[in-house]
Amino acid sequence: MPFFPTKRLLAQFTNRAVVYAQHGDPTKVLSVLSYGPLPSPPSNTVNVRFILSPVNPADINVIEGVYPTKPKPDTSLRSSALGSSDQPAYVAGNEGLAEVTEVGNGVSGLEKKDWVIMTKPQLGTWCSSRNVGAHDVLKVPRAPGLSEVHAATMTVNPPTAYNMLQEFVPLKEGDWVMQNGANSAVGQAVIQIAASRGLKTLNFVRPRDDLADLVKQLEALGATKVLTYDALADKSLRKELKTWTGGRDIRLALNCVGGQETTLMTRLLGSDAYLVSYGAMSKQPLSLPTSLFIFKNLTARGFWQSRWYLEKSRDEQRRLMNVLVNLMSQGKLKEPMHEIISISAKESDEEATQKVRDVIAKSYSGRQGKKALLRINVE
Amino acid sequence: MPFFPTKRLLAQFTNRAVVYAQHGDPTKVLSVLSYGPLPSPPSNTVNVRFILSPVNPADINVIEGVYPTKPKPDTSLRSSALGSSDQPAYVAGNEGLAEVTEVGNGVSGLEKKDWVIMTKPQLGTWCSSRNVGAHDVLKVPRAPGLSEVHAATMTVNPPTAYNMLQEFVPLKEGDWVMQNGANSAVGQAVIQIAASRGLKTLNFVRPRDDLADLVKQLEALGATKVLTYDALADKSLRKELKTWTGGRDIRLALNCVGGQETTLMTRLLGSDAYLVSYGAMSKQPLSLPTSLFIFKNLTARGFWQSRWYLEKSRDEQRRLMNVLVNLMSQGKLKEPMHEIISISAKESDEEATQKVRDVIAKSYSGRQGKKALLRINVE
Repeated sequence: MPFFPTKRLLAQFTNRAVVYAQHGDPTKVLSVLSYGPLPSPPSNTVNVRFILSPVNPADINVIEGVYPTKPKPDTSLRSSALGSSDQPAYVAGNEGLAEVTEVGNGVSGLEKKDWVIMTKPQLGTWCSSRNVGAHDVLKVPRAPGLSEVHAATMTVNPPTAYNMLQEFVPLKEGDWVMQNGANSAVGQAVIQIAASRGLKTLNFVRPRDDLADLVKQLEALGATKVLTYDALADKSLRKELKTWTGGRDIRLALNCVGGQETTLMTRLLGSDAYLVSYGAMSKQPLSLPTSLFIFKNLTARGFWQSRWYLEKSRDEQRRLMNVLVNLMSQGKLKEPMHEIISISAKESDEEATQKVRDVIAKSYSGRQGKKALLRINVE
Repeated sequence: MPFFPTKRLLAQFTNRAVVYAQHGDPTKVLSVLSYGPLPSPPSNTVNVRFILSPVNPADINVIEGVYPTKPKPDTSLRSSALGSSDQPAYVAGNEGLAEVTEVGNGVSGLEKKDWVIMTKPQLGTWCSSRNVGAHDVLKVPRAPGLSEVHAATMTVNPPTAYNMLQEFVPLKEGDWVMQNGANSAVGQAVIQIAASRGLKTLNFVRPRDDLADLVKQLEALGATKVLTYDALADKSLRKELKTWTGGRDIRLALNCVGGQETTLMTRLLGSDAYLVSYGAMSKQPLSLPTSLFIFKNLTARGFWQSRWYLEKSRDEQRRLMNVLVNLMSQGKLKEPMHEIISISAKESDEEATQKVRDVIAKSYSGRQGKKALLRINVE
């Protein structure tokens, strides 16, 4: 006779998390684990219920164990449910929108039903509910026009875009910025935030069959020019660029690709420029002629939003979030293209595990184009 | 009957310059040209007699026409002496020690017999005498222990070394700095200036047969450790380095090589470090993993002493020169290894031309090891 859980059992396991016990290929090491209701939150913490949790490329690297930030095991999970009781359980996921369900003693500024986002990296967001430190989250104002998707994707990509446009080169209205991987989530945010500041963008993307559609889409976001990497090999580009910019030097290039395309893009920069890297999608290193550094005074830097959160005060974090909420609320920063993957409470852990692994496998292929957002344990 | 110049003619051509009419291979385009005495200096200028003029690698690039700073033709030279009267004559050379021979109206702070060095790039120093703007030179104090060779080589290499140790990373006694091309003229200055500040240096040089001699020589200058590029491939180096530094991160690497050796060296740096490039002897580009920029917050910069002179005030220039004069005078910054090539007034222009071309050819080979200094038109 097959085993059916009784109603009492189902009620007991109201929560679920996507966990792993050791680093490795996420399509093999991830599994969905059910666990009971959370105990009441200790002092200075809150219990939260996750609404949406994005799957970012870096999440995959964390699970693989190749990311510099290592997650901490979650000791609140009943380790026996993981099969072996001496293995730590890591909850995957870095970003997410959650709702406060219970507030511990000593917490000020947070109430039940408040929306919060995570400011501490690698908290483990691919779950239905969990307990978090009150200082590891920020309350998100419920501004009109601000959607769940907006809020859930607010801590990684938009601030990366915003800060890269802010922290390296002083830019004023009419100045140009160039970037590759312009159709990435960060790239789309760069286009929109730049446009909201009156900055022009020169955007490079991979050559593709549906290029015209992509160009139209990025132009609709506010892109000034969209070109493929092939255009970089064309010597006439430099001249054309001069016409577009009215001879004004471009002093900021944002890079998430690396390799030869980035070398060619960097050559288009004027003197005293910054090349800021935040990704390496080509998996090729940056290769730059030394003369650019010596004679054109190029500075090559990197940007990592996780470091930003560690270095900045809560006031600075809140200030940045408010800027982004305003942009989103005013329709100047749109939801990223996305797909919501719901994991119902009715699915078995095995079924849910397979669903999550499929999402990851699709992300791996790199051609998904849409950001995957997990909604875990909906009724 | 062969033509012998009369005494009157010899007296008329008291001056000589190493000139070129068009860019190209220096061993082909350079020639030595004789010309008459200088007219009295116009207002705000001085006439100077060159004592010693170094041959730097960049001088060759300038003559080839591949250097970003282009020299101005010298209209004071009788162009008829160049064969074709409508070709401009460029006097080669960027660095040199000269003595003031005549002071124009309106010049303050300079007198006959004063030593001066050039602060304006590409003035044309490979000559016996010329007229220069009073603001394009700096008076060098005749400090005890300061030799002609010291003063003649003071404007390019020692300030490059000094500024790279000064402008990027705040370093305090006991901190480490690493560099490649450590036996270059700049590298030797880095070792000595670092030692004078109580900084430790990790020095990389090319593998070679006489390595033990070179190590001894660099250690005598104050080098803490000297290794070959081969050592960079050895994985145990990182561990060894930790023992040497007591686990202290190295935050500054100076690079004049490029290519794979520089990639490996950069990997030894700690977080928040600077890689500062001032040369590219390997003619290979800088190739750096993007992860160093993103996760270790590496900054890659360049340094060019010519830009420094353009950006800094005369007071700042004088302050730097005084620091270097003091180091030299105290024996903390030794003369670079050098060879003086004298061109006698008795040699014909053809003989002198051949001598200069031979010096350049030797520099070209890159294995000269000694800095060549021209002393032109000695009696």
